[in-house]
Amino acid sequence: MERCPPFLSLKLPVTYVVRMAEQHPSDLDAIFHPRSIAIVGASANPNTPGYDYVQSLKTFGYGGKIYPVNPKGGEILGMRVYESLQAIDADVDLVISCVPSKFVLELIEDSAARGVKAVQMFTGRFSETGKPDAIDLEQRLIDKAREAGVRIIGPNCMGLLYPEMGLSFRTDMSQKSGPIGFISQSGNLLFELTHFSDARGLRFSKAVSYGNGIDLNESDFLEYLATDSATKTIGAYIEGVRDGRRFLQALSQAAKAKPVVVLKGGRTSAGERTAASHTAALAGAQKVWEAAVAQAGALSAQTVEDLTDLLIGLAYMKPGSGRRLAMVGAGGGRSVLTADLCEELGLSVPPLPDDVEEKIAEKTPDLAGWVTNPVDQSILAGSGLGGARVLEWLDASPGIDLLLANVGEPWAFGRPNAEALIDRVTDRFIEVAAATKKPFAVVLAPSDYPDAERWRMTSEAREKLVAAGLAVFTSVERAVRTLARLAEYRS
Amino acid sequence: MERCPPFLSLKLPVTYVVRMAEQHPSDLDAIFHPRSIAIVGASANPNTPGYDYVQSLKTFGYGGKIYPVNPKGGEILGMRVYESLQAIDADVDLVISCVPSKFVLELIEDSAARGVKAVQMFTGRFSETGKPDAIDLEQRLIDKAREAGVRIIGPNCMGLLYPEMGLSFRTDMSQKSGPIGFISQSGNLLFELTHFSDARGLRFSKAVSYGNGIDLNESDFLEYLATDSATKTIGAYIEGVRDGRRFLQALSQAAKAKPVVVLKGGRTSAGERTAASHTAALAGAQKVWEAAVAQAGALSAQTVEDLTDLLIGLAYMKPGSGRRLAMVGAGGGRSVLTADLCEELGLSVPPLPDDVEEKIAEKTPDLAGWVTNPVDQSILAGSGLGGARVLEWLDASPGIDLLLANVGEPWAFGRPNAEALIDRVTDRFIEVAAATKKPFAVVLAPSDYPDAERWRMTSEAREKLVAAGLAVFTSVERAVRTLARLAEYRS
Repeated sequence: MERCPPFLSLKLPVTYVVRMAEQHPSDLDAIFHPRSIAIVGASANPNTPGYDYVQSLKTFGYGGKIYPVNPKGGEILGMRVYESLQAIDADVDLVISCVPSKFVLELIEDSAARGVKAVQMFTGRFSETGKPDAIDLEQRLIDKAREAGVRIIGPNCMGLLYPEMGLSFRTDMSQKSGPIGFISQSGNLLFELTHFSDARGLRFSKAVSYGNGIDLNESDFLEYLATDSATKTIGAYIEGVRDGRRFLQALSQAAKAKPVVVLKGGRTSAGERTAASHTAALAGAQKVWEAAVAQAGALSAQTVEDLTDLLIGLAYMKPGSGRRLAMVGAGGGRSVLTADLCEELGLSVPPLPDDVEEKIAEKTPDLAGWVTNPVDQSILAGSGLGGARVLEWLDASPGIDLLLANVGEPWAFGRPNAEALIDRVTDRFIEVAAATKKPFAVVLAPSDYPDAERWRMTSEAREKLVAAGLAVFTSVERAVRTLARLAEYRS
Repeated sequence: MERCPPFLSLKLPVTYVVRMAEQHPSDLDAIFHPRSIAIVGASANPNTPGYDYVQSLKTFGYGGKIYPVNPKGGEILGMRVYESLQAIDADVDLVISCVPSKFVLELIEDSAARGVKAVQMFTGRFSETGKPDAIDLEQRLIDKAREAGVRIIGPNCMGLLYPEMGLSFRTDMSQKSGPIGFISQSGNLLFELTHFSDARGLRFSKAVSYGNGIDLNESDFLEYLATDSATKTIGAYIEGVRDGRRFLQALSQAAKAKPVVVLKGGRTSAGERTAASHTAALAGAQKVWEAAVAQAGALSAQTVEDLTDLLIGLAYMKPGSGRRLAMVGAGGGRSVLTADLCEELGLSVPPLPDDVEEKIAEKTPDLAGWVTNPVDQSILAGSGLGGARVLEWLDASPGIDLLLANVGEPWAFGRPNAEALIDRVTDRFIEVAAATKKPFAVVLAPSDYPDAERWRMTSEAREKLVAAGLAVFTSVERAVRTLARLAEYRS
């Protein structure tokens, strides 16, 4: 196994040469819109991927034909199981393979004979095992596919997720469509994103887990999402690239069209070793990588948390390059710490602009000269002046570029009218969001309470904020980090 | 107002001079164990602090006498309201003041006349307003208290939280006792800690919000918690210190007795300006501060998230200074990213030690040489070898110092037997935790689901893990950051 990361063969700085992609995006468009799908290695055992794929297509409401295939025949979820691809007396556009790796060469032949456009291979145990015979089999697989004119997604992947089309690989992925396109070498990571952040609006136009990426790879999918009108922002989890020059070209083109955030796995020697056993990717040197991603006009993320927050910020906040932040809704300690973190990350937290000071002095003379920015909610308490009103004044002020608002739900919980308080503040933040032209981040902590009522109130508040298109962050820290990164990116 | 932070007057490096504290810790012990409490400014209106204090003492089961005081008389929660302190015909140990600031001088006189040991002042609007007359009043307040021999907690504070004694300032603070002592210049911050992290075991032996700290201050409380046997770990949120030399001495003494984590507010000019309006603290220069905290043997935290995670790690993980980490339970992408983050933060993620490799080869020959560290859960799937078994082998191996285990609950949700799967993995992690002598961190994401069943399963799993004394982190990233910081601290 060649150990030199192919990415390192890049000479930087690169002059990007615009050239024709090896296939038209329309090839991928057909693959994302199959009229019929055969699941080869389908199973009636609910604890198998061969069942998951069949059930997912049903659950997600896929509108084309579904053909489960298994030599044993029988039925799965009320559908006839075909004994072979040949036994299907109709066209098959996409094959999903759940068979053991020893059957894949034959499967490619059978697929070609049926006119199949692409085979999505959940089937693994290829080069990622590090074993010579498995590496050899992978090579024969790609040779066979090229010879037969069949495209491959994977192997060792979960494949396509396209809620609007009814395509999914597990029933418990989110069925909600959203503005984010995603490409991932890891199926599990895509799966985690749905589970942990769907409630925050991290929802996909189209996504793909492409595993070892021996044929269709990161560049193909990037090129496709760059021109996909339903995709407003692109995220990527990449362990290694097959062709560094082509990738940078695709990344640069995509980043010209819409924001792109890339999370790189295999940045260190331990990560690289792990990546080799995961998708057989050869990871690139981190500094070169980061420089290249920045030069292409994309954003680098370091963790899944960063990636999630940046995508949500890009998808749901107005763009803006100013750095003067104002915050409302937090108590004293939190306000002090927020000011610290902002300044440490390159934002500024100026004193209240004069126009806002004047409005406060008019409404509550008592607080004039005491209230500062961040606006300490506990100082406002009982004054008759609410945080949301101050937020509106801050929005109207030319002295402020960025708005950060904290729901402050813990404080409401202890009050007799908790639900009304939380409702009121979320409604007011939604009003501000509808009017503002500035980047606006809202903080609402996870609905992470053993108490069912608190969980319900927090969950419903989040649902309302997200449905109204607001960018919701789980902590002040994460909101500030995102605002700081995006201010840098937009400038 | 003097603008030069008194902290800067310190000459570093400091030779710590052991000297007698100005009062014996036993003074504070009496204040933490009042036999009777009068709430002056008590109110029957549930939306006031004067009600909260009375209700909190009842709810928390405070065993001493409670005397609500208000010139209007009447009843609150079935208790007689006294028209004045003088009207109480019994000893009063502690007074909680909710009256406007113009009444505080008289209150001190009345308290002294009643033999009160300390007055805890929720009452605010002193030097934190920045107004000359308020600053002057604060000075007269401390002069009066010293003259009268009455100690002050605050002003502008929430005061004591001591669940075992039944002391609290809001009913919705956690009633569960724990191993962590906490001192905070911000009441809201203490409040947030309970709300956001009680479920993770961030529970207090004794805590205090001390606001402006004009009499009893950070050094007094640190000295007290250092010798408090119920306190195993100390956390502090500090905006400014009154006497830098005494503080460093107290911090150093405390850190010799037990781990101390300090979060500093007012690190930047914007934070300092905000701190002035919050507790009138004059913040110290950050570099000097950090050096001094490190020299005293304590840990610095930068955010509330850091502070929370460090306290949980210190309270619930075994100590250990080795840096070789092993992880089980995550999928491929997550494993790669974890290895990266570990190495970037100074931990090492070695390949599986030979003794573990041998056990894997014996049990599942197919996986030998493919499975690496971190142990990719998706490779183990269907092999008959579970992640918890590998974790036990890693625990037994001399080649590994730190254990990190991911519950992986999203993967379980989609399975028909989700609850049994999550139960099984948490039980197995609890078994490993009971046996291990190594630092062991568990990752379970927030129970942050709009779906009630998922919320319930996650909440119950967390409750079980925390009840068994495990250190639970909300993300792999946060667990790794904590393990890295604590490995550095312990070495």
